[in-house]
Amino acid sequence: MLSSSLPLHDFLENLGSKNYILPRTNLFQCEFLNPWEEKITALTGFSGSNAWLCTKGQDVALFTDSRYTLQASQQVPSFIQVFDMREKSIASWFNTKDPIYYSPELFSVYSYKNLSRQGLLLLPEEKDYLKGLCCALNPNEKGAFFEYPLEFSGKDTNLKKEEVLRGLPLGVEGAWISSIESVCWLLNIRGRALLYTPVIYGHLLLEKTGNMTLFTSHPAPEGFARKDLKIAPWQAALETFRGYQKPLYLDVKTLPMSFYETRAQNTDVLGADCIEPLKAIKNDTELMQAKKVHERDGKALSSFINWVKKEAIKGDLDEITCAKKLYDLRSQQDGFICLSFETISAFGENGAIVHYQPTEKTNQMLREGGLYLIDSGGQYFGGTTDVTRTICIGHPSKEQQELYTRVLKGHIAIASCRFPKGTKGSQLDVLARYHLWQVGLDYGHGTGHGVGNCLGVHEGPQGISRLSDVSLLPGMILSNEPGYYKTGFFGIRLENLIYVKEDSDGFLYFENLTHAPFDKDLILSDLLSDNEKKWLKNYDEKLNSIFNDRS
Amino acid sequence: MLSSSLPLHDFLENLGSKNYILPRTNLFQCEFLNPWEEKITALTGFSGSNAWLCTKGQDVALFTDSRYTLQASQQVPSFIQVFDMREKSIASWFNTKDPIYYSPELFSVYSYKNLSRQGLLLLPEEKDYLKGLCCALNPNEKGAFFEYPLEFSGKDTNLKKEEVLRGLPLGVEGAWISSIESVCWLLNIRGRALLYTPVIYGHLLLEKTGNMTLFTSHPAPEGFARKDLKIAPWQAALETFRGYQKPLYLDVKTLPMSFYETRAQNTDVLGADCIEPLKAIKNDTELMQAKKVHERDGKALSSFINWVKKEAIKGDLDEITCAKKLYDLRSQQDGFICLSFETISAFGENGAIVHYQPTEKTNQMLREGGLYLIDSGGQYFGGTTDVTRTICIGHPSKEQQELYTRVLKGHIAIASCRFPKGTKGSQLDVLARYHLWQVGLDYGHGTGHGVGNCLGVHEGPQGISRLSDVSLLPGMILSNEPGYYKTGFFGIRLENLIYVKEDSDGFLYFENLTHAPFDKDLILSDLLSDNEKKWLKNYDEKLNSIFNDRS
Repeated sequence: MLSSSLPLHDFLENLGSKNYILPRTNLFQCEFLNPWEEKITALTGFSGSNAWLCTKGQDVALFTDSRYTLQASQQVPSFIQVFDMREKSIASWFNTKDPIYYSPELFSVYSYKNLSRQGLLLLPEEKDYLKGLCCALNPNEKGAFFEYPLEFSGKDTNLKKEEVLRGLPLGVEGAWISSIESVCWLLNIRGRALLYTPVIYGHLLLEKTGNMTLFTSHPAPEGFARKDLKIAPWQAALETFRGYQKPLYLDVKTLPMSFYETRAQNTDVLGADCIEPLKAIKNDTELMQAKKVHERDGKALSSFINWVKKEAIKGDLDEITCAKKLYDLRSQQDGFICLSFETISAFGENGAIVHYQPTEKTNQMLREGGLYLIDSGGQYFGGTTDVTRTICIGHPSKEQQELYTRVLKGHIAIASCRFPKGTKGSQLDVLARYHLWQVGLDYGHGTGHGVGNCLGVHEGPQGISRLSDVSLLPGMILSNEPGYYKTGFFGIRLENLIYVKEDSDGFLYFENLTHAPFDKDLILSDLLSDNEKKWLKNYDEKLNSIFNDRS
Repeated sequence: MLSSSLPLHDFLENLGSKNYILPRTNLFQCEFLNPWEEKITALTGFSGSNAWLCTKGQDVALFTDSRYTLQASQQVPSFIQVFDMREKSIASWFNTKDPIYYSPELFSVYSYKNLSRQGLLLLPEEKDYLKGLCCALNPNEKGAFFEYPLEFSGKDTNLKKEEVLRGLPLGVEGAWISSIESVCWLLNIRGRALLYTPVIYGHLLLEKTGNMTLFTSHPAPEGFARKDLKIAPWQAALETFRGYQKPLYLDVKTLPMSFYETRAQNTDVLGADCIEPLKAIKNDTELMQAKKVHERDGKALSSFINWVKKEAIKGDLDEITCAKKLYDLRSQQDGFICLSFETISAFGENGAIVHYQPTEKTNQMLREGGLYLIDSGGQYFGGTTDVTRTICIGHPSKEQQELYTRVLKGHIAIASCRFPKGTKGSQLDVLARYHLWQVGLDYGHGTGHGVGNCLGVHEGPQGISRLSDVSLLPGMILSNEPGYYKTGFFGIRLENLIYVKEDSDGFLYFENLTHAPFDKDLILSDLLSDNEKKWLKNYDEKLNSIFNDRS
């Protein structure tokens, strides 16, 4: 039944019989939205991070992926059909030549072209059907931005600018940078527009002459002055974009259709974000800072793990208390800005829900015999962390131990592998799964994603998964997070961040960044090879040496 | 210097200043050509299996791949530039809008479209510039074809025909089958048009009505009669193709431009060979027969290996003698038709040349302390074999042992892995390389290719390599052949055929087909895990049980 607190009914009534499509994103195509930007949650109650709400006459459908289909069915009113978009395509559901209306502010050029290519006729909405549902910009998003000093960024804006300009295709006179992470990276600034990613909202015009114009509502910090950089109000962005006479390089994945549709320049070049491949390769300063950040972050997490192991057995801890405790420990660390995503603090069967976050309603007590999974991270001056550990409360079962050990073997296989230049993440992925596959098990997510420097905890183009078709290059930071999930019982995931380094013989390998103990109670030594035991011993020794030096 | 025995000079003189491009293939787009079809060898002396000869004004270039660049430089006259086509593209070498002439008989539609897409203007040659260089059809190719009985094919032509027709896209009224392996598979016939693949030369018109017309110069065997099958002379093929009024499904990879350019039907559908995916999945009869064939083939090879290990140490064996001996042993086996490719019999440094075949000039004696590599296979009623073993003559060095053991570990990792449905060969490839990568080594070829049933020893679409983007399905036969090559010293390759099987839990795994011993003298036990030792023990026990039962 449609809950009366949801404005979905009004929205549908406003639409009449019009077809409509609404992606879960905002004007800046963010993955992590602020709560007041969650239009699909406001309409349907669904809180997952991947969603497309579609209406066709009287039919309403929500498209998401396998991580969320169960959750979506539980959260949305029963008259909304829920689909896994990898099993049924949005285009095949619509299956019509009639117009489908969309908000040009929420559609990237890529999304528009991708659906049009599949035969849908997309038309910009004639009025704002979502008006008043959420605020486009919340007052919190208007705080001043701040400088990200050279000691953390390792490269000044002028050098970065030269690299970006050198990479632009012939014929364009500049680039319109619409990825907010890329704007922050290039200008060496950060902001608090989002809860978990220290970015500003804004676009940047970078011209071949070297002149830059930042369009943003965030005020500059006191005394901020940059040669070649003009700051203009966000309201001037669209006007400038529309009126700019020379051909530009445009980022197909983040430029909104509300901008693109106004532009008459057909000599523009559309392509992937021209900054992403540069940003992905961390320089020596960034790597050095990342190491320091991970030592501090590891200290917080290690204290937390020791505390949970000791306290939980008494039966007084719940998931939310644990998440708060870890936040407290982390926030005491030097340079801490904010969490890098909402903490996944999951006991027992909740651990098997890959993207679980505890609420007052689902909050579980930690109990003897169960597994506790904590996936969390922080944003610091100097780096972004993301780490997962799985801990047994009291005595584990043999099954829990065997599965934990198999996941650990996969983790070690990635952590310790060497590979020639040109190797892609898709080639390495199987190493993390091999020991699960041998007993007929697997996990449904990728093995690793790219990570930014005090920016997105999910960053492209690098990754380790079946689909990661990008060569791994020295300086790229990635997660290494195999897992196993037994629905209704427990989840196991072991995640460190690692970065790619070149060895003296030209081969590449991963250097570890994350320092936090693996739970010895869950490791079956008999299942480990000599090399795996050696790797674990080295890992522990390193951990001890760091914490003894500094505590 | 240009050798006077090569007709290249006349060819270039005939061309004048015209640009020309010549692929190494024949009218049927074969990979293994008969010697009298080797136009590029006749022109340049180069004998590798991948070659494009290109002329532009006075410049002549030969494009091949990394397997052959060294060999090509040694074989061709010095004024011909040799390129690795993965490093430099043919289109970028031509870099001209001027016409480039080609022989429509030797160009598939795919090759034509692929080069055109890269900006080359390809025009059919105005006269046959290669006339008289080689015979299009040799008398040997005109022998009668023969039936491939149901006890070996496992499925009659009518059932196969239904499957093929069911898979055709809507709108076409039939398929023009131009892949000679596919023609043979569908009709359950074989022939001797090629030295190493028991196929006929011809095309087949398969109509939706169920009627078929085989165009071929090979006479039918006595008493051959099939309902729904008409046999027409090869000379009628082009005429029929051109005049056929209804839309057809065409195979872009094997249909020659000499056919395609005559056809006015623009409702034809161009795509991949519609039979290839069906042919790749062997039925139970084919698999049962393959097992029997591999037992017989393994018996021949095992006898050969024992003989080499005993005899070579005396210093009287050379590469050619060994290849002949193995041929003799194989040809005594039941159901033997021919070899499945020219035997690679390579001692010492010749083993490091991946596609080496001994000639009178290069023939080496087998000597103590060296490694001998033998890669060979047979075509039998019931199956195609392809197997590589590496043998030490006398006492091996520690280095040889360590590298052999690492290659063996990769072989075992593939042979013993389990994987979920949907896994592609590109995901598994790393398992074969992992133990070499760990010490900074690798091999330049793929890990495995598909294999036919008494058909192509290289068969698509399945494979195990970085580029194999096809899901592995139960019934597919593949090779598993990791290697290591130390240029100037030795080569190691260990190859078995395996096939994909489904386990009771729905996971897939490989069942072994090839039976031949691994050289115990080259295995360092200390480098093997318990599981690897167990795999080897099982392998040897199976080998012994087969040979004890039957010898």
